[in-house]
Amino acid sequence: MFALRSLSLRKASPNPLKTRAWRACLHTGARVCGAKVAVVLSGCGVYDGTEIHEASAILVHLSRGGAEVQMFAPDVSQMHVIDHLKGQPAEESRSVLSESARIARGNVADLAKLRVTDHDAIIFPGGFGAAKNLSTFAVDGPDCKVHEDVERVLKDFHKAGKPIGLCCIAPVLAAKLLPGVEVTVGHEEEEGGRWPYAGTAQAVKALGAKHCVKDRHEAHVDQKNKVVTSPAFMCETKLHLIFDGIGAMVGNVLKLSGK
Amino acid sequence: MFALRSLSLRKASPNPLKTRAWRACLHTGARVCGAKVAVVLSGCGVYDGTEIHEASAILVHLSRGGAEVQMFAPDVSQMHVIDHLKGQPAEESRSVLSESARIARGNVADLAKLRVTDHDAIIFPGGFGAAKNLSTFAVDGPDCKVHEDVERVLKDFHKAGKPIGLCCIAPVLAAKLLPGVEVTVGHEEEEGGRWPYAGTAQAVKALGAKHCVKDRHEAHVDQKNKVVTSPAFMCETKLHLIFDGIGAMVGNVLKLSGK
Repeated sequence: MFALRSLSLRKASPNPLKTRAWRACLHTGARVCGAKVAVVLSGCGVYDGTEIHEASAILVHLSRGGAEVQMFAPDVSQMHVIDHLKGQPAEESRSVLSESARIARGNVADLAKLRVTDHDAIIFPGGFGAAKNLSTFAVDGPDCKVHEDVERVLKDFHKAGKPIGLCCIAPVLAAKLLPGVEVTVGHEEEEGGRWPYAGTAQAVKALGAKHCVKDRHEAHVDQKNKVVTSPAFMCETKLHLIFDGIGAMVGNVLKLSGK
Repeated sequence: MFALRSLSLRKASPNPLKTRAWRACLHTGARVCGAKVAVVLSGCGVYDGTEIHEASAILVHLSRGGAEVQMFAPDVSQMHVIDHLKGQPAEESRSVLSESARIARGNVADLAKLRVTDHDAIIFPGGFGAAKNLSTFAVDGPDCKVHEDVERVLKDFHKAGKPIGLCCIAPVLAAKLLPGVEVTVGHEEEEGGRWPYAGTAQAVKALGAKHCVKDRHEAHVDQKNKVVTSPAFMCETKLHLIFDGIGAMVGNVLKLSGK
């Protein structure tokens, strides 16, 4: 007599752009206020998609800041699927958009539909998805290609003077596309494994960007370009410090949005 | 010359119980202190696994509280796979343990290996995985069966007087297994869609538990049974309020652990 089965899909929405969710927004409740922020996902899971805890921290801080959030992801196949238990590629394929919907609880739209005029700011969490699905940085380093819609929206927000937030490995997208931008990916030396991806700072410089050293709980603000970055999981550290560093990034993005 | 490919799997560990990660713990950094807390996952994604933002909030609060965390999940197939974009079942199968590893960044162990003597407390996030993979509650309601290892560990922690935390739909597991326990799943009326799963409170009562009405940002503490519950996504609300409610749950679990 009692079954959750009939309720299990009530929140999933196949086309959030055409639903009230667009205004009400799943993660910010019914009150529409503050900045309208686009969050761009790249799958669900650190090794082949969006880093889950970075995305969640971004959404918590945006919610507390009163932002109205809409999530987007490209409608493409993942570069590959990593079995996160075995740490090995699996023989299957998954959709970046459908997997991103796991983080977005169904409310995610095709990145092709993102228009700069609809938003006050844009934020990219990290995870290898940014370097595998949004770009080819994980394979090609500074010679990487960037997904056409990622390139379009990043250049459009920059041109419109609207703030851009990125964390973890995602700042390489800004470094690739916005000449001379200032970003941080944390420290520039591995320091005994504390910064296992420290080599990324050299790649950022090779791309023509300025790398600014920041600690795990900090964000760097490029005031001129309105680009805000934080190291997040580039550092092997406690999760609540990563959460706080992302909070600094989100706070500065909202401040720069002027809303 | 620069490629992240070679680094892409360095954090993934096929057997965390045999690695240093067991002591150092991914999400709590190098300092070993405070309570040892087991977190039991059920997949990755609200409609067929663990609710991602609930799990992340639990881990952030445990990290801030100085806890040493180890994550577990049963090594079984998911009841089914939901395409979270379409809101429909997909024709594929996924492993609860492997998908849980996406939340755990690789560091998750088979629930069969969880021993009460190794931990000071245990926490179950929600998501339909708790009602589909850890039990059959989503299909059978109060007549549900509970996975044998879930039953074993919940009864063992209860018998040992060690605190048990649960949120969202997961409190039904305690209601099923611990006669007369006090739990909350939020409010008992839908209130125009604000509490879409309010009927769960009746199921909790049908199981012989006492349901205690709590709001989205609160936790209920059953002092006698050392069971702490919070509504989380049982309420349609802002994410930061869910985060805070989970913080109240985690804080009370750590307090009851005496560490």
